[in-house]
Amino acid sequence: MTTHVDAGTDPRHRTVDTDLRRRAAAVVPNGMYGHLDMRTFPAIPQFIARARGARLWDVDGNEYVDLMCSWGPVILGHADPVVEEAAERQRRQGDCLNGPAPVMVELAEALVRTVAHADWAMFAKNGTDATTMCCTIARAATGRDAILVAAGAYHGAAPWCTPFPAGVTAADRANLLHYRFNDIASIRAAVGDKTDRVAAIIVSPFRHDAGFDQELVDPAFARDVRAYCDEIGAALILDDVRAGFRLHHGGSWEPLGVHPDLTPWSKAIANGHPLAAVTGTDRYREAAGSIFVTGSFWMGAVAMAAGLATLGELERRDAVAHMSELGGQLRTGVLDSAARWGFDVTYTGPAQMPNLAFRDDVDHALAIAFSAEAQARGVYVHPKHNWFVSAAMTSDDLDMALGGLDGAFAALRARHPQHGAR
Amino acid sequence: MTTHVDAGTDPRHRTVDTDLRRRAAAVVPNGMYGHLDMRTFPAIPQFIARARGARLWDVDGNEYVDLMCSWGPVILGHADPVVEEAAERQRRQGDCLNGPAPVMVELAEALVRTVAHADWAMFAKNGTDATTMCCTIARAATGRDAILVAAGAYHGAAPWCTPFPAGVTAADRANLLHYRFNDIASIRAAVGDKTDRVAAIIVSPFRHDAGFDQELVDPAFARDVRAYCDEIGAALILDDVRAGFRLHHGGSWEPLGVHPDLTPWSKAIANGHPLAAVTGTDRYREAAGSIFVTGSFWMGAVAMAAGLATLGELERRDAVAHMSELGGQLRTGVLDSAARWGFDVTYTGPAQMPNLAFRDDVDHALAIAFSAEAQARGVYVHPKHNWFVSAAMTSDDLDMALGGLDGAFAALRARHPQHGAR
Repeated sequence: MTTHVDAGTDPRHRTVDTDLRRRAAAVVPNGMYGHLDMRTFPAIPQFIARARGARLWDVDGNEYVDLMCSWGPVILGHADPVVEEAAERQRRQGDCLNGPAPVMVELAEALVRTVAHADWAMFAKNGTDATTMCCTIARAATGRDAILVAAGAYHGAAPWCTPFPAGVTAADRANLLHYRFNDIASIRAAVGDKTDRVAAIIVSPFRHDAGFDQELVDPAFARDVRAYCDEIGAALILDDVRAGFRLHHGGSWEPLGVHPDLTPWSKAIANGHPLAAVTGTDRYREAAGSIFVTGSFWMGAVAMAAGLATLGELERRDAVAHMSELGGQLRTGVLDSAARWGFDVTYTGPAQMPNLAFRDDVDHALAIAFSAEAQARGVYVHPKHNWFVSAAMTSDDLDMALGGLDGAFAALRARHPQHGAR
Repeated sequence: MTTHVDAGTDPRHRTVDTDLRRRAAAVVPNGMYGHLDMRTFPAIPQFIARARGARLWDVDGNEYVDLMCSWGPVILGHADPVVEEAAERQRRQGDCLNGPAPVMVELAEALVRTVAHADWAMFAKNGTDATTMCCTIARAATGRDAILVAAGAYHGAAPWCTPFPAGVTAADRANLLHYRFNDIASIRAAVGDKTDRVAAIIVSPFRHDAGFDQELVDPAFARDVRAYCDEIGAALILDDVRAGFRLHHGGSWEPLGVHPDLTPWSKAIANGHPLAAVTGTDRYREAAGSIFVTGSFWMGAVAMAAGLATLGELERRDAVAHMSELGGQLRTGVLDSAARWGFDVTYTGPAQMPNLAFRDDVDHALAIAFSAEAQARGVYVHPKHNWFVSAAMTSDDLDMALGGLDGAFAALRARHPQHGAR
């Protein structure tokens, strides 16, 4: 089936991108790596020149409405003027100094005020730093080693959690136990009689494993996992690195009334400035103060000033409501287009972070062809990862996105009359 | 002995710093953590307001000549105008984008051109990211698990390497073997007959373990460890995170003619902007391309533009020679002052990264009192960690530093007539 799917031709110029890919391949292994590696999606530009609001331009000058938001970090829009002004004000004083700047205290106070369960905050640079710190804090607090992780969940790219095993040792994973998302029985089964070995259960606010339909959390599961952690004396870690501040301003499980013990944050916390954080409850404060974690740039004051401004603007603009509203219109429009052109699709997850997939799409071939057609029409989407809506999206941006995506469905239908029909 | 050492009184104002410490203690475990935690050195301000060149100001407005350089990152001086202009140019285009900006290629090309052994480069955010990536690459390349680490060496703050064990599991360290710096026999002894288990030996360019006299590398040891890695088929990882670009522009062991296989870089690479890198040889290129590592901000283009400008300016200003020259004058002046006031001190390591210690100084009490006196005289030094000289240091800065440090020795002698006398 996949051999019949034609990835399409891109009418847009790609000469600068092609040249940069060639140069990159000489001086970077494979030319690029990690989640931004576009080798397997040649229709998606590898190199980006600039961005503003909900638009971005590739190195060949092609314009896109941005439905990836730099894979999550951009939540108020690229180069948000309020955030950038706050960053510039701090930059004139200093960034990487011999100690933290006062803004570290203001940001921690803002997080404690904003995040429902937070009694304290710590800062780092990567989402992986924050998820790893949560595990270390839970281990220090409990004196136990084991961490329960949902099979297939992404919690970062350190050896203990990276999704591809090259260079990873058995010891790196020796203390992991696996459960199925939304399945409390699978947690009990994974733990068995080893309740006194479990330091923490880490869980995403919803199932957002790349390449799969997303799955919202069952509120009963959220409550059950909270109760089970209390029962066995383990920490509940809610990994809000990807979803944080897009679903709820005070934590993604706040609408359920379920409070984690520890939360790692990153991505959207400073609208693209490099920052991560851990928040926790007083019960875990002493343990958090007992571990040694640090980084040369963790107290960088510019990213913290950007984070403080981002938290303020998200609240002031009621950004979650806006993203939810626009995301809802995006969902309606995409599903209308898919139906119009006769494609049987799934469109899963929260409206602000949707995942589009074609049913029975072997090796994501239709999704890859669709995203190529979307890129060619100025809509930046990814075929195997959830999209992100930002608060900068206007109705003009939405119209451009829906028009381009409708055109992509039409083109796909024209070239593949039999594929994906319902 | 330590009970007799008086830390001295600080005539400088500390009211703002004191207030910020109090607020921080409410919302951050212990108020601060990691290497910037000044709780045990109350004479050192915890919070820094601003910095320019080789000077910085604490939140109470006290001015210091900076001999810590933000613990290494600041190498051209705080807020270097050339670096900041390059960063600002990139910032106007974009920072955290949906893919890397062209500057990623330019920076990788510059590193391959600059670093003698480098055939390729990869980028990250923390020094710990880079040291961990080197281990993962070595493991992927060799199919082996064990890493040899010098006892007491600092290679970052992830569970496999952080110097304090709270929250660390036995599994995190299961694949480490330990040797003594500058002792090739200790390497052979640690490996024994397990040569086919060793993925890599990681080594600092000189011994710079905090709290100890520093020790330059014995050139014969460097050559022997290189030959031994070749003999057993393991990777030689030269951890240049702390020393990189201060001792030699192309790698800290270049003067010895000893080339590592893999080098982690961070700290000074972008003059304080958050950036880390790994460079490696073609032999490790395929393995480097096989691992999955990434971070939301790793392709941040502003830090890369700052890095590119930093590499260029370091070369253009012959920064290593300047730092070596000024560092040499600092050493001469400090040793003269110590002798004048009758203190028996050690002043170890490269001139650009010296470590001052008092002989027989139980619990570093004299060093702590000395650094308090230095802070009170406007010289920012640390009592238990090597200092850093930057290329921004002028003869005026040096005079201010030497004057303040001489005054600190004098004050220490006045209050402790018997201590540390030779």
